[in-house]
Amino acid sequence: MSCLLVHTPLSLACRRPTIPLCAAARNPLGAVRPATSIGKTGGRLVILGSGWAGLKLLGGINTKDYEVLMIAPRNHFVFTPLLASTSVGTLEFRTITEPVRHHNRKALYHQAWCDSIDLTTRSLTCMPALPDHTQPFTLSYDKLVIAVGAYSNTFGIPGVEQHGFFLKEISHAQRVRARIIECFEMASEPNCSEDDQWKLLSFAVVGGGPTGVEFSAELHDFIKDDLRRLYPSLINKAQITVYDVAEKILGSFDDALADYATQKFAREGIKIRTKTFIRKVEKNKLVLTDGTEIPFGVLVWATGLTATPLIRNLSPAAHSSSHRLVTDDYLRVLDLDGTPIPDVYACGDCATIKGNELPATAQVASQQGIWLRKHLNKVPRNEMGQPMAYIGGWKAIMETPNESKLPKGIRGYLAWLAWRSAYLYKSVSARNMVLIPITW
Amino acid sequence: MSCLLVHTPLSLACRRPTIPLCAAARNPLGAVRPATSIGKTGGRLVILGSGWAGLKLLGGINTKDYEVLMIAPRNHFVFTPLLASTSVGTLEFRTITEPVRHHNRKALYHQAWCDSIDLTTRSLTCMPALPDHTQPFTLSYDKLVIAVGAYSNTFGIPGVEQHGFFLKEISHAQRVRARIIECFEMASEPNCSEDDQWKLLSFAVVGGGPTGVEFSAELHDFIKDDLRRLYPSLINKAQITVYDVAEKILGSFDDALADYATQKFAREGIKIRTKTFIRKVEKNKLVLTDGTEIPFGVLVWATGLTATPLIRNLSPAAHSSSHRLVTDDYLRVLDLDGTPIPDVYACGDCATIKGNELPATAQVASQQGIWLRKHLNKVPRNEMGQPMAYIGGWKAIMETPNESKLPKGIRGYLAWLAWRSAYLYKSVSARNMVLIPITW
Repeated sequence: MSCLLVHTPLSLACRRPTIPLCAAARNPLGAVRPATSIGKTGGRLVILGSGWAGLKLLGGINTKDYEVLMIAPRNHFVFTPLLASTSVGTLEFRTITEPVRHHNRKALYHQAWCDSIDLTTRSLTCMPALPDHTQPFTLSYDKLVIAVGAYSNTFGIPGVEQHGFFLKEISHAQRVRARIIECFEMASEPNCSEDDQWKLLSFAVVGGGPTGVEFSAELHDFIKDDLRRLYPSLINKAQITVYDVAEKILGSFDDALADYATQKFAREGIKIRTKTFIRKVEKNKLVLTDGTEIPFGVLVWATGLTATPLIRNLSPAAHSSSHRLVTDDYLRVLDLDGTPIPDVYACGDCATIKGNELPATAQVASQQGIWLRKHLNKVPRNEMGQPMAYIGGWKAIMETPNESKLPKGIRGYLAWLAWRSAYLYKSVSARNMVLIPITW
Repeated sequence: MSCLLVHTPLSLACRRPTIPLCAAARNPLGAVRPATSIGKTGGRLVILGSGWAGLKLLGGINTKDYEVLMIAPRNHFVFTPLLASTSVGTLEFRTITEPVRHHNRKALYHQAWCDSIDLTTRSLTCMPALPDHTQPFTLSYDKLVIAVGAYSNTFGIPGVEQHGFFLKEISHAQRVRARIIECFEMASEPNCSEDDQWKLLSFAVVGGGPTGVEFSAELHDFIKDDLRRLYPSLINKAQITVYDVAEKILGSFDDALADYATQKFAREGIKIRTKTFIRKVEKNKLVLTDGTEIPFGVLVWATGLTATPLIRNLSPAAHSSSHRLVTDDYLRVLDLDGTPIPDVYACGDCATIKGNELPATAQVASQQGIWLRKHLNKVPRNEMGQPMAYIGGWKAIMETPNESKLPKGIRGYLAWLAWRSAYLYKSVSARNMVLIPITW
């Protein structure tokens, strides 16, 4: 049987590109309502975003009650916790993606960015995330779920987007992988000086959170196990360094895990430079605030998230100090007075619950999506249900291991991976369940 | 165990880009000979190209007798007969590639284009096929094997390279796959008119040879089996058309196979337009010599091969009418007088044997590479051996099935595929041997 990979083209899978204003101002279709919502007691449910929250919601939503429509620039779901593994070739890209359209055959999907939400008229303006499209379309909604995620945060440091790689999309992982190999090939050229070899094989990871730490660990194994055989004369020049502004890496996690990672990295030769402040990034070098210049061949930037313009500009809606939308316990978006805006929900990385700020993890987004699906399936029956509650406690939310629940002997980093995997593998299709151990 | 994919970055995996002349004129290193050739009785053997011929030669060459160095812009081998399958997602890209460096750990490899060959001084000028490199390097050789393959032939028709896709590299297959999905997504946009849907879902294949026919068959199955489930409302608008200037498709093959393919295509709804002459290609349309305009969403161009500039310009060397290098039965390149040029061999798509012009197939290149490896392993022992002879007869050379050797009941297109597979699968590693049936 043949199978299917549905990737957004590389150029489209990152940030919303700017569009000409004149084109965005046109609106030829108006808020057209196709016939499919006729007879649906819940009306039209629009889901913005194809990440963890959006997909968990989409999977089991009752399409008898709702006309369901997903709008997202990425037509596939990405199993984000394994992106670091694919970026070094441990896993094949296809094993960690699933086409959005597979998740619910009765839902409609448009590959588009949502550019603005009009809460008064209950309408959305969207721009197709496809080549040659400069013509927006508008849609009305009866219920709206905002689950658009967040952008990687550069903290306004110049040069990061031009010279560094993020690790949020398949296309990012593909580019990181290609660039790592490219650096080894460049260092193998007969013209390459020894000094340039050291620079090319210097791998900088900025951000000592879970993404940065996982990527560093995966890259280390990739170099030690695979690249050593292909580039034996170069391997001693390869150096991975993790940079963070904080005093230690994995600062928001259990001390035990952070200490374990630090010791493990020291043993493996991965350098950790904490309390390091970067002023700017130039081609192939970091410039620190004290003027120090640090050359690199590959820079992976994993310093956390920032709200998208759509979220920042949503009005009238309450925003947290980190510009996320504020919701109540039912994930309803609150207005500036703290009153729920009718029929508008938000979850995942773009939102936070009032008085209960949770970290932006796949785990939280996933649980919110599942809860919201169950809740919305009750609404047309006038059942209110219980407010959102988390399973697994803080350790699960933070994706840190609860070692007492794991088989004896699994500790430290391995425990962490096992914990994440056990929780999150449920999202992967049976086909990929088979492929992951084979390509691993 | 983690495993390794080594892809040339997309932008580098096609034709040799032009380089600034001023840079190409610099030559800082000269023809440096590293210490590794000391004590090798055969001296330095340079292999140009990492295709079928180059890799078959590289695999078993005696590195005790030769200092072996491969120069090729692509650092991985591609199992070309399966490219059509990967372009529609039947197979994962990684299953049909192997890193060059895996083939012979004792050989050196540089990722570079060979720009010129000086037969008098026995030296090569090469340009790294890597970003930011404008500085060429030169190398001397004692023995040279030219196996650089050929470019896709556009017959000088304007617009083909800008608006069409070839199918010679992994990057081509990746782009074709992304573009097919993109067309279906564009046709799903709410703004897309029915007329535009027909245009977007019109898939044009120019060239009725094996590549064009295989791709059309694979694309048909992809649409029928996979895309039908994801885009049910669009599937009736999808149309594949194969264009050829000849009177029939697969003209150089057995009549039985050509007739079988024609009938099969007619039954499956794939249109064949023979005796069709294209004047130019514009964005999303073919313009025929009679002025007819034919819109397309995806254009795959598979009309055969043409010699590269390196081959065309090699002097003094004999060229065939199709600009391929002419060799004797020992694959030695002949000069204009028909005398073998000392220590210079050519094989694969860039060469042809005098009086015995063979088609440019993987089969021929593979057999030539194997023969040349055995021959070169004898040369340092002053053994001449037998001239090149082909196994399997004309049917094998043309990669057409010898049905009498196949299990009963396997006929037609299936026989053809089985035949190619049986011959060519030997090149794939055990790991990929396992992965191919799983992802198939």
